[in-house]
Amino acid sequence: MADGDAIKNTGLRGVKVADTEVSFIDGGKGVLIYRGYRIEDLAQYSTFEETAYLILKGKLPSSSELEEFKKLLADHSTLPEFLLKSMELWPKDTGTMYVLMAALPFLGLDDKESGENSVEVYEEKAARLVAALPVVMTAWDRIRRGLAPVAHNGELSHAENILYMINGEKPHTDIARALDICLILHADHTFNASTFACREVASTMADICPAISAGLAALSGPLHGGANEKAIAMLESLRDEEDIESWINNQLSEKKKIYGMGHAVYKTYDPRAAILKDLFKGLAEKTGQSDWYELCKSVEESAMKAFTAAGKDKIKPNIDFYSGSVYHMMGFAHDLFTPFFALSRIAGWCAHIIEERFGLAQTKPSLYRPAAEYVGNYCGLTGCEYKR
Amino acid sequence: MADGDAIKNTGLRGVKVADTEVSFIDGGKGVLIYRGYRIEDLAQYSTFEETAYLILKGKLPSSSELEEFKKLLADHSTLPEFLLKSMELWPKDTGTMYVLMAALPFLGLDDKESGENSVEVYEEKAARLVAALPVVMTAWDRIRRGLAPVAHNGELSHAENILYMINGEKPHTDIARALDICLILHADHTFNASTFACREVASTMADICPAISAGLAALSGPLHGGANEKAIAMLESLRDEEDIESWINNQLSEKKKIYGMGHAVYKTYDPRAAILKDLFKGLAEKTGQSDWYELCKSVEESAMKAFTAAGKDKIKPNIDFYSGSVYHMMGFAHDLFTPFFALSRIAGWCAHIIEERFGLAQTKPSLYRPAAEYVGNYCGLTGCEYKR
Repeated sequence: MADGDAIKNTGLRGVKVADTEVSFIDGGKGVLIYRGYRIEDLAQYSTFEETAYLILKGKLPSSSELEEFKKLLADHSTLPEFLLKSMELWPKDTGTMYVLMAALPFLGLDDKESGENSVEVYEEKAARLVAALPVVMTAWDRIRRGLAPVAHNGELSHAENILYMINGEKPHTDIARALDICLILHADHTFNASTFACREVASTMADICPAISAGLAALSGPLHGGANEKAIAMLESLRDEEDIESWINNQLSEKKKIYGMGHAVYKTYDPRAAILKDLFKGLAEKTGQSDWYELCKSVEESAMKAFTAAGKDKIKPNIDFYSGSVYHMMGFAHDLFTPFFALSRIAGWCAHIIEERFGLAQTKPSLYRPAAEYVGNYCGLTGCEYKR
Repeated sequence: MADGDAIKNTGLRGVKVADTEVSFIDGGKGVLIYRGYRIEDLAQYSTFEETAYLILKGKLPSSSELEEFKKLLADHSTLPEFLLKSMELWPKDTGTMYVLMAALPFLGLDDKESGENSVEVYEEKAARLVAALPVVMTAWDRIRRGLAPVAHNGELSHAENILYMINGEKPHTDIARALDICLILHADHTFNASTFACREVASTMADICPAISAGLAALSGPLHGGANEKAIAMLESLRDEEDIESWINNQLSEKKKIYGMGHAVYKTYDPRAAILKDLFKGLAEKTGQSDWYELCKSVEESAMKAFTAAGKDKIKPNIDFYSGSVYHMMGFAHDLFTPFFALSRIAGWCAHIIEERFGLAQTKPSLYRPAAEYVGNYCGLTGCEYKR
């Protein structure tokens, strides 16, 4: 066994627990690759559907394979009637992440462990979840506003459908493409808290739905997917702030967090944030919201200046800083930001679950089962005397 | 960093990732201790309510503290009306573990991250979940049978209430005490797949409900909590088997699994299985089901003989072998066995979540975020050329 004390209480940072073929990060150089492809290329040339196919199956689809995959997604873009009826009963202030978690077990009711599971079966289950999750989110967003859910439209792309099912009207091409790029950029990020939670659960041979539940649960945390909601709340509160630089310096001197800054892995600019920042700028100009872009940019600049002065020049904006800003500009309710992350990352989660169940992870013992050091009350192997 | 290659693909077996004060196992000696107390003592003298208090708060309660804790449990043993109404809409063949997962997000609706979270707040949230989970399970078990749920009875113990809410009548003292002991024995087991999943999610600062969701998800796996259902299916199928010894030898020679045998940690008799086996014997005699006990005992004996002959004499029956047998004798539907595990283990999960959020884990970086080795398609840092 390797030196346990070097690992204990490190949060497993940097500890390689498995092999993966899904994605790769070079944190020093600011590079993110899905299945061999740079995200810059995917953001420029690909679509979410194609990228999801790539992540799930390990290769880019041919035109006919892509059409077939889109058809599979369309075929599973309706929810069972009992689920919609249940959702109508749920308290309107239930957080959307909680609604996704509550609905998820019902998205796999036909997926019982049949003993016939295989990569192919799991790839189909995965496609069904990729298709159904946006339907849950958008249906809920309408139900809680007292509106009837809008049915999926087979003529539209995945990103267009999300906007269509929220707003009830066909979206502007630029907005839809911007959302498409956001979905591409969030689709995988190698091992992280939610992906590892998915793999942990899949390692017990639990089905894909419970494994995804664990991913949603982890993503809901403010230190993970929840960070984009925290970042937007901070940015919103700065709209009327006259002296952003002083505000930032104040936060730092009071050791308060500046949300959307810094990343566990990237020691340079988060390549996803770089793409989103450009996207944001273009979209802000087109939609006449340049003041919002300027505010975010000015927060970034002040923060960079302050971090550099504090000798922390490796802290840069991360994806949460700019994804929140973009979603906000698109007019979405803030509690949809983390769910948007989930709608995209579910592709990566499923690929990792498949890898855990059928792929590379087959060379390891099935369960992830770490140990802990007991430092609690101890009265020897006979135990403490029981008395109250 | 410690030697990564020694850890990769080991499922983190034996890798100490954190300190804990909740429980301790000596696998070589067959000892399990909760907060300093031997489970043998707790099974003999304690109750589930008291053990849950011990696990959550780190010390045995005084009589008045115990009364207060029981009152807290009773106060949270009703479900919101909308949840019961939703459950009536759900397909009757939905697995009970899936129902627990679907209901869980609604058990924490008053638990939004308020910024005022503290150990005390979390201990109360934990008590509410310990109280509410059995109500979900029992309500579901009645709803799917077309019966109205039975309300919690403040006069009865936790174990008695579970039986009462399933059957609609006050249970026999011996059965209730047997269930009470089962709940005590499953309440914690230091780091394992589900507990680690809970801690992983809690480390993102997600709330207690999402963290418990991940625990339920992991527990649903056939290699974890689901094992007791697999064991009972195997035992049931052997009722008419004339030559159990041959059947066992046959399984071994075909390298098929014998469920309920062997454990990742115990290299001697699982101390929980030892207690359950005695309990099982006594209960079988009292209820005139000694033939069922004899069958299980004979499977154990044949398996021990076969394992010893194969040089695998460290493989012994684990808790799943006897818990399934006991629950079966009590007449429960088989798909309640893993949920029973959850109703008990939720005490341990909550204690570990509290430790992660407020306790010892504060010395580590917040997120569990392991690394992976990328062995997939790689075209250098520029990425593969994008073309279809």
